[in-house]
Amino acid sequence: MHQPLIITIGREYGSGGREIGQAVAKKLGISFYDKEIINLAAEKSGLSHEFIASNEQRVKSGLVHNLSASAAYSGGFFSHHYLPLSESIFISQAQVIRDIANKKSAVIVGRCADYILSERKNTINVFIHAPIEARVERIMRLYHLDEAAALKAIATSDKERGNHYFRYTDRKWGKAQNYDICINSALMGVEKTVEMLVNLAQIEERE
Amino acid sequence: MHQPLIITIGREYGSGGREIGQAVAKKLGISFYDKEIINLAAEKSGLSHEFIASNEQRVKSGLVHNLSASAAYSGGFFSHHYLPLSESIFISQAQVIRDIANKKSAVIVGRCADYILSERKNTINVFIHAPIEARVERIMRLYHLDEAAALKAIATSDKERGNHYFRYTDRKWGKAQNYDICINSALMGVEKTVEMLVNLAQIEERE
Repeated sequence: MHQPLIITIGREYGSGGREIGQAVAKKLGISFYDKEIINLAAEKSGLSHEFIASNEQRVKSGLVHNLSASAAYSGGFFSHHYLPLSESIFISQAQVIRDIANKKSAVIVGRCADYILSERKNTINVFIHAPIEARVERIMRLYHLDEAAALKAIATSDKERGNHYFRYTDRKWGKAQNYDICINSALMGVEKTVEMLVNLAQIEERE
Repeated sequence: MHQPLIITIGREYGSGGREIGQAVAKKLGISFYDKEIINLAAEKSGLSHEFIASNEQRVKSGLVHNLSASAAYSGGFFSHHYLPLSESIFISQAQVIRDIANKKSAVIVGRCADYILSERKNTINVFIHAPIEARVERIMRLYHLDEAAALKAIATSDKERGNHYFRYTDRKWGKAQNYDICINSALMGVEKTVEMLVNLAQIEERE
């Protein structure tokens, strides 16, 4: 018997990657994880959900990294398992992702899941992006923002996700070679992109 | 009536991108361009095929670029339209690619075609890559090389293609956001990857 199929989805803010992931999971009849992982990770690590939610992607490049090298084992300021807090969170999330992958088929959005499961068989790593105009339009519509606010939210998110990914994986976020398939969701639209990914998953499942 | 459909394919050496491009063109019943473009460009620019073939991707990062800034209009060493030779070749190739795109549907492999046609409608920009093991295996098989030679050829090609692309486009080669779809050809294999791209092209054609 195959081990469970895992589809990881990295995505640009406003690309529809989360919606695509949800629809793919639903069509395949498998589980879907996104923010839920934060909650599971929180339970494991004993940190409050709110704290993790507000800290887990606020990695400023350099700062925390330097601190982690020099102060990881000094306790005090960092505490929690003698690791910097952001490291603790990442390790908990990674453990949750591995636990899911051992148990059942699932779509997992974000959280460097592609990297965490990079040696795993029966895993399809997906990255969803879209041209800036399409992302702005989507964010304006979904969150009732004006254009300037949407642009700002996108710039902030790109920077945070890129920093977070690089910090924990030492790889460049959105580099094609790190994924099995990268798609501009604006090419075919959300629905047809979902269809393509479902077909792809079914090909992989059959083999 | 639609303007012709153009599929551009950037590809890593040993990923099967060229073979995939040829098969996609054949299945769609459209033209295929790769080295042919060099010949057409050569005819236009008056440079010999051999000369272009041996020079067009030998862009050493920095060197030619610096020379082009300082010496582009000094004639002599560079001559040919008062542009550095590599610039002349690129400009000729770009013109050929635009001419093709105006006239007929085609698959165009390499030559920064995605960038040259980046503002064009009815264009699908594809990037094909594969894990290093799959690329080595393919190169060894196709060119009867041993593993060390295959690895060396791949490293040289990656560097040359990356430099060439960056030099003319100021964009990073293999960055997902520069393409509509990027695929690891080892995921499904050449045949199923061709199928997926043909389906994608047919969806685009219908719309």
